Amino acid sequence: MSDQEKKLLNILLFSGDYDKCLPAFILANGAREMGMEVTIFCAFWGLFVVRDPEKMSSTDKDLYEKMFASMTPGNAEALPLSKMNFAGIGKTMLLNMMDNQKAPHLVDFLEGARNKGVKFYACELSMEIMGFDKEELLPEVEVAKVNVYLENASKSNINLFI
Amino acid sequence: MSDQEKKLLNILLFSGDYDKCLPAFILANGAREMGMEVTIFCAFWGLFVVRDPEKMSSTDKDLYEKMFASMTPGNAEALPLSKMNFAGIGKTMLLNMMDNQKAPHLVDFLEGARNKGVKFYACELSMEIMGFDKEELLPEVEVAKVNVYLENASKSNINLFI
Amino acid sequence: MSDQEKKLLNILLFSGDYDKCLPAFILANGAREMGMEVTIFCAFWGLFVVRDPEKMSSTDKDLYEKMFASMTPGNAEALPLSKMNFAGIGKTMLLNMMDNQKAPHLVDFLEGARNKGVKFYACELSMEIMGFDKEELLPEVEVAKVNVYLENASKSNINLFI
Repeated sequence: MSDQEKKLLNILLFSGDYDKCLPAFILANGAREMGMEVTIFCAFWGLFVVRDPEKMSSTDKDLYEKMFASMTPGNAEALPLSKMNFAGIGKTMLLNMMDNQKAPHLVDFLEGARNKGVKFYACELSMEIMGFDKEELLPEVEVAKVNVYLENASKSNINLFI
Repeated sequence: MSDQEKKLLNILLFSGDYDKCLPAFILANGAREMGMEVTIFCAFWGLFVVRDPEKMSSTDKDLYEKMFASMTPGNAEALPLSKMNFAGIGKTMLLNMMDNQKAPHLVDFLEGARNKGVKFYACELSMEIMGFDKEELLPEVEVAKVNVYLENASKSNINLFI
Repeated sequence: MSDQEKKLLNILLFSGDYDKCLPAFILANGAREMGMEVTIFCAFWGLFVVRDPEKMSSTDKDLYEKMFASMTPGNAEALPLSKMNFAGIGKTMLLNMMDNQKAPHLVDFLEGARNKGVKFYACELSMEIMGFDKEELLPEVEVAKVNVYLENASKSNINLFI
């Protein structure tokens, strides 16, 4: 056991960009491997990361919510890059470069984080605004209000807004 | 009183995006309601959030500053989205979704933060570069250098760069 | 000596945007002047900031890596803005506004940070994916894995993801 045991990493995952979610999940996996506790609180665009691709519902959605659900990425791997045109690099190019180095994809890091016991929260207010049902998220994700985030963050050694 | 009393939340608000300012102000309101102290240090694009819509000055501005002042958002509610084209969602659509859920707008959260005693700073260097006068900001905003931010952040339980 | 001595500021520099790197390096310089220790861990787009403009290599690069190296900014000053169209402001306009205020440019803050003893790390995984060789980075940059970041961050008083 490393001396990082009992230390807490807490991430407020606001971004729904593929390239910004990568470091969030690389850190989450690395921290768990060092024995740290890890909490990821998903808000706004970050909700797309913990969407369950097999359980999308269109019941009880109003018009905007249905449009929104049908247009937005259905799972982590479908997220866009934050800079589609940064230096002309596109997501295909980034994924090719990752494959050339046998680097895992975002879905792999997400799977790793789930297997290693990272604790996931989904922001209740964001879910209401975006029209997400709890059933559309990965089953272990807990819906929580902002005070749960603040209580976790107050106790954490590392807080990051990504 | 909650045990969060005397804990400090410190936000370096760099972003001038409507969707990124929302979580900053939701956290600020939530933290004050839990009895935490909250400091928001506005730099660069974040200065637009604390611009006073009733007190814009064009005296003592050079050409670039005048162009800049006339083209940029005059208050918090006029800020753009970080992802105008993310999944085709525009700001009108987001505001409609928020209204459908009776969720407050950014100006409401800003008003709440001001009423609840959140402490606001404006970065002096950013103001100089962008040509902002102190008189153009909300009256309670204090102009400060980077060392004030660092001293506050050193003492805070939660530091976020948004 | 200020009472900030022995305090640690730790920045995970993910962004390769000129305007987002500015506050990172302004904070780094300010913190060193107050006697704080400063660590900057460069990952993904943040690697471009610590690229050595005089030592770009194209040996041992595969096709994607060569394309990527030739298309991307060769040094800190060549970085783009995060919002090229925010309020119509372009990088030339921002630099003009900075020059009018005699504000230093990003390269100046980078040089200051190097002279003041800021500790730089480069993320090993990001380097592999992007095809960077250690020789292409500024000589004092140390290549490190995510556990080095997490150990530093666990001990730091201020952690920021920029």
